[in-house]
Amino acid sequence: MSQAVEQGTLYVISAPSGAGKTSLVAEMLRNDEKLGVSVSHTTRSMREGEQNGVNYHFVSRTVFEAMIGEGDFLEHADVFGNYYGTSQAWVRETLATGQDVILEIDWQGAAQVRRLIPECVSIFIVPPSPEVLRDRLVGRGTDAPEIVERRLAEAEEECRHAVEFDFLVVNDDFEAALGDLLAIVRAQRLRMEVQQPRHRALLAGLSGPA
Amino acid sequence: MSQAVEQGTLYVISAPSGAGKTSLVAEMLRNDEKLGVSVSHTTRSMREGEQNGVNYHFVSRTVFEAMIGEGDFLEHADVFGNYYGTSQAWVRETLATGQDVILEIDWQGAAQVRRLIPECVSIFIVPPSPEVLRDRLVGRGTDAPEIVERRLAEAEEECRHAVEFDFLVVNDDFEAALGDLLAIVRAQRLRMEVQQPRHRALLAGLSGPA
Repeated sequence: MSQAVEQGTLYVISAPSGAGKTSLVAEMLRNDEKLGVSVSHTTRSMREGEQNGVNYHFVSRTVFEAMIGEGDFLEHADVFGNYYGTSQAWVRETLATGQDVILEIDWQGAAQVRRLIPECVSIFIVPPSPEVLRDRLVGRGTDAPEIVERRLAEAEEECRHAVEFDFLVVNDDFEAALGDLLAIVRAQRLRMEVQQPRHRALLAGLSGPA
Repeated sequence: MSQAVEQGTLYVISAPSGAGKTSLVAEMLRNDEKLGVSVSHTTRSMREGEQNGVNYHFVSRTVFEAMIGEGDFLEHADVFGNYYGTSQAWVRETLATGQDVILEIDWQGAAQVRRLIPECVSIFIVPPSPEVLRDRLVGRGTDAPEIVERRLAEAEEECRHAVEFDFLVVNDDFEAALGDLLAIVRAQRLRMEVQQPRHRALLAGLSGPA
């Protein structure tokens, strides 16, 4: 047989709003060029500073629902009346090239992905205390109280599913949490099922004449 | 319920002679105070510079065989006519205090430990090429050719069992291999089954009123 192409690893990262997930993932990507992030499709409106194809693929509800019908999504969710989804074709093609992929999705999306790609590695990030969570959600000061309350209820619901994940990272200190995430990725690449195809010739050579 | 005592993790590290395992494990211990190493019992003669109770517990064959009879060993092996073994009581008591323990043993010992403590984490270290392995084994220049040949055959036999381990670390660059080993330990401590008991109160607080 010719050498097998290495298969990338799919990381599913979830967190309650306010845990610092987005900043942490952005730093992971800067630190590790073998990591890529999936750009989701969404039907929500573009916010100031966002770019189509960079932050999200912004599509209409009609288009999104047609994509659901065609089984285009690895996972999708309806969050506060807006759809969010991850293109299955893009993820599978990218993993097949040996690139690792991060999905930033909620616990429901994570559950869907786990069913379709059971070998994915899932990580849950939490803030160091309920008070910090509350402060961060309120602290934005840009949303109405009922929006904040709804976001808090959603954050609590999200945290009730933390135990379904493979890893738990507590974001008390940003650098420490980043180090934790990078260690998880580094260790994952050392697992025998990842290393064996990569070092098949070395292992055969070290084992001497059969 | 009162808080559960955290259980330490048992790391089983194996390698062919000449892979740099002993130096790497020594550096791991210097870098991570939560890691301890088990001191094995052996019937082989003490070498210059070795200390009883530090490098090994040096005992007679009679004593060693009596300990086997009493089931004192987590694993033991007869290597070139000398016994080597790991005290089961010490390992289990140390893990129960929350301390992590490293066992430096061969593949046969690793197989025995896996049967008794299936949740152990096993790591295999290899040199970067068969040539490096050969050079390191010959390069000591202190042993007769037939000893070198026997050690090479043993190293090859050891490497044939690499795939039975959870992780594979290639010791090409010492610092990189050390970083790999420390990342495995760091990631292991972030696994949900380790983190959940440690952060039970935090997770309950973040999940809001039930």
